[in-house]
Amino acid sequence: MAKELTSRSENYSQWYNDLVVKADLAENSAVRGCMVIKPYGYAIWEKMQAQLDKMFKETGHQNAYFPLFIPKSFFSREASHVEGFAKECAVVTHYRLKNDPNGKGVVVDPEAKLEEELIVRPTSETIIWNTYKNWIHSWRDLPILCNQWANVVRWEMRTRLFLRTAEFLWQEGHTAHATQAEAIEETEKMINVYREFAEKFLALPVIVGHKSENERFAGALDTLCIEALMQDGKALQAGTSHFLGQNFAKAFDVQFANKEGKLEYVWATSWGVSTRLMGALIMAHSDDNGLVLPPKLAPYQVVIVPIYKEIEQLNSISEKVSEIVAKLRSRGISVKFDDNDAKKPGWKFAEYELKGVPVRLAMGPRDLENGTVEVARRDTLTKEVVGIDNIDQYVADLLDAIQENIYKKALDFRTSHITKVDTWDEFKDALVNKGGFISAHWDGTPETEQLIKDETKATIRCIPFDAEAEEGKCIYTGKPSDKRVLFAIAY
Amino acid sequence: MAKELTSRSENYSQWYNDLVVKADLAENSAVRGCMVIKPYGYAIWEKMQAQLDKMFKETGHQNAYFPLFIPKSFFSREASHVEGFAKECAVVTHYRLKNDPNGKGVVVDPEAKLEEELIVRPTSETIIWNTYKNWIHSWRDLPILCNQWANVVRWEMRTRLFLRTAEFLWQEGHTAHATQAEAIEETEKMINVYREFAEKFLALPVIVGHKSENERFAGALDTLCIEALMQDGKALQAGTSHFLGQNFAKAFDVQFANKEGKLEYVWATSWGVSTRLMGALIMAHSDDNGLVLPPKLAPYQVVIVPIYKEIEQLNSISEKVSEIVAKLRSRGISVKFDDNDAKKPGWKFAEYELKGVPVRLAMGPRDLENGTVEVARRDTLTKEVVGIDNIDQYVADLLDAIQENIYKKALDFRTSHITKVDTWDEFKDALVNKGGFISAHWDGTPETEQLIKDETKATIRCIPFDAEAEEGKCIYTGKPSDKRVLFAIAY
Repeated sequence: MAKELTSRSENYSQWYNDLVVKADLAENSAVRGCMVIKPYGYAIWEKMQAQLDKMFKETGHQNAYFPLFIPKSFFSREASHVEGFAKECAVVTHYRLKNDPNGKGVVVDPEAKLEEELIVRPTSETIIWNTYKNWIHSWRDLPILCNQWANVVRWEMRTRLFLRTAEFLWQEGHTAHATQAEAIEETEKMINVYREFAEKFLALPVIVGHKSENERFAGALDTLCIEALMQDGKALQAGTSHFLGQNFAKAFDVQFANKEGKLEYVWATSWGVSTRLMGALIMAHSDDNGLVLPPKLAPYQVVIVPIYKEIEQLNSISEKVSEIVAKLRSRGISVKFDDNDAKKPGWKFAEYELKGVPVRLAMGPRDLENGTVEVARRDTLTKEVVGIDNIDQYVADLLDAIQENIYKKALDFRTSHITKVDTWDEFKDALVNKGGFISAHWDGTPETEQLIKDETKATIRCIPFDAEAEEGKCIYTGKPSDKRVLFAIAY
Repeated sequence: MAKELTSRSENYSQWYNDLVVKADLAENSAVRGCMVIKPYGYAIWEKMQAQLDKMFKETGHQNAYFPLFIPKSFFSREASHVEGFAKECAVVTHYRLKNDPNGKGVVVDPEAKLEEELIVRPTSETIIWNTYKNWIHSWRDLPILCNQWANVVRWEMRTRLFLRTAEFLWQEGHTAHATQAEAIEETEKMINVYREFAEKFLALPVIVGHKSENERFAGALDTLCIEALMQDGKALQAGTSHFLGQNFAKAFDVQFANKEGKLEYVWATSWGVSTRLMGALIMAHSDDNGLVLPPKLAPYQVVIVPIYKEIEQLNSISEKVSEIVAKLRSRGISVKFDDNDAKKPGWKFAEYELKGVPVRLAMGPRDLENGTVEVARRDTLTKEVVGIDNIDQYVADLLDAIQENIYKKALDFRTSHITKVDTWDEFKDALVNKGGFISAHWDGTPETEQLIKDETKATIRCIPFDAEAEEGKCIYTGKPSDKRVLFAIAY
């Protein structure tokens, strides 16, 4: 088969790259680090977007759109933002091309140089808070609960499709509040929206907690995160929600008159998820045969393949299939009937396995006689012959079962890959020989975290919300610690 | 009232700017020519997107995403594209900032200069056809029917919110076909999708036809367009669909093996509409009191305002209103109940008029007693008192009537602003004293069109599909002509 994948055990990283390209999800473009998201991949992203957008609106948010470009000087306004944020950005310096006077083609017109360079947004806190300044005057103008769906650019040196690309798609929520308590509540509300989305739609168990100071967003007082575990034992940060305090309000002088008429600085949050979730989805569930998609995000949930020798058989099968299609669609199940005569059933089976279609129905002449259909599920690769009378109910239940099973499998994997260690040797051993999350005591200092990272590449992924109070000693310094945190090597 | 608008008769251009800002649709940002689309404006754009996206999918298209950046050299590949396309583009020359060694802030790192400059996409034919080269090998790979929703940048010198901005949002469809006939059919299919969208959703009558050579898209063999008329008598191009022939396939060497195994160049189309449609929507229907939104695109179709003195009255009214809200929502009608106690009913009435909410219901204590509600329609500014028993049916019918009436009003205006002229004097007179479309004979040459434009600013907006064969003489040169075309001064 032309589309065979490298196996995970052979080379996990190559397996991932193969899968993304061969399942028609995305590919590299002519522009370094920028990807093309192909229709099948984009259809999955659209399903993610639609669900998240619904959840944002249900929690009172509205969409808006802010400029792609940010004046360079804006980045210097919030000290820790400029200090901590990566400087690898796309910089626009000119606004015109002209015909090359020395021959063919075009050159940049040197006379069209911008007075101040523009940065292609790597994130939009600065331009948005500069805008909010005009929107906020009194407590009556608060809260502002905006989200934007947008592209952003960070000039990453080492890129990987979906996981780390120079341009990526995301949403960024930016909210403004009258009180600290309300902003903190918003920060927590949104990380819980992300958690719910990850668990129920991506079928991806995540650990929710705080980032350590080292891993915090530049400009944030607190960063909450959802952390997931991939099949190779590496962690992946799947979403973050930041409590920004009054930092951006102070940097952009955004004050409001409170109910007593006194001026106060506004409290801020920001939160985002990106096309990186595509990488998480792929790496968490898929196998050596290809993608395994949770039914709730599959572009089509069911594919039907006819098995026939002569075209008359196809006609009879098609007639029966159209009844099944109608029944499934009336339940809101998305179905593709692949009656392409140019491809053999075996080719189609492999193709839809590669593309992760959750349920495959195959119908041949004998099925037609018997009133049955062969039902294959992608997650377990098992098959059953089922009567077609209640096939819609059967498939609806099966899709629910698959969604649940995929989640459970990922949860079992994660549960078996959280290792409690109490010594530095155990820590290094678990990291090298087992991978996954390492639950360990830490003395709470950025310096120690940095030393551990320098020595092992592991970072603190998360200080879980539900970490129990427990006296212990830091695995690296032996200093006292009052709870365990989760370390891992991360994407 | 703080939000009063300049009237249309006083200054149409100022009226438009006032309206866009005061109705909370959009505003200028800190970046020259780039707008912020505010939540209320974005909600209308989202409704447009959702409907168009549905129509694209129903006609077999899929969404994908291509890079924001295009290597500079790509623009030189297709000769007429580079020749005809505006050179005002945002140019990325560097990929890193660094801390200013001489003090605070950041500067562009001179060592991080790109080998080849990248252009922020003004349109994506070049990068997409460079990608299609890898997707297309055989006739089996065709057609490709992709669309992308994206931001694009054209460094316009004179900008106006929605109508002409440096960055704007749009969709661009890019399709690849095995035959010329199929590509032409696609070009026509998509202009008809735009026509249907404009008429049924924007309530905007449009004239469909061909562009003249002068107005054609750079690189196209034929450009089809929908042209609308604004209330000030100026035309606005609302959407275009281009038949690109094999130009881009040749420029990017995209060939396919046909059924006989011979290599042929692929045939192309592209088509797009943008946030400019927001400008068209606003200018076509609105009045001196504010926006007039067609019900099918209104973020909320109905607003309910309670009229009360004491808070107990509000409670009784709210109870009754909640029944009405439930009934309306069960019919898919979007409703806002504005029970904000801090604002007076008069303020709310003016606010929702400004924002173009199609139907306003007001309920006071007497209505409560009588089982009635006051229904005001935004398009005619008329009011009626209606019993609440069948209010849901009443409102549903009224929304349909408003949608139809807005369309009819715009159609009547356009019909009365198409002027047939047969002499140059009549032409100039109609242009200056009446505006609108001027239906006139033209000798078919780009030179004549240019001369007319130089003298009057009028251009050929459209050679209508339904132009009747009619012998005549060019109004400018007196040379023979076989049909009338439509001139106008355009946005």
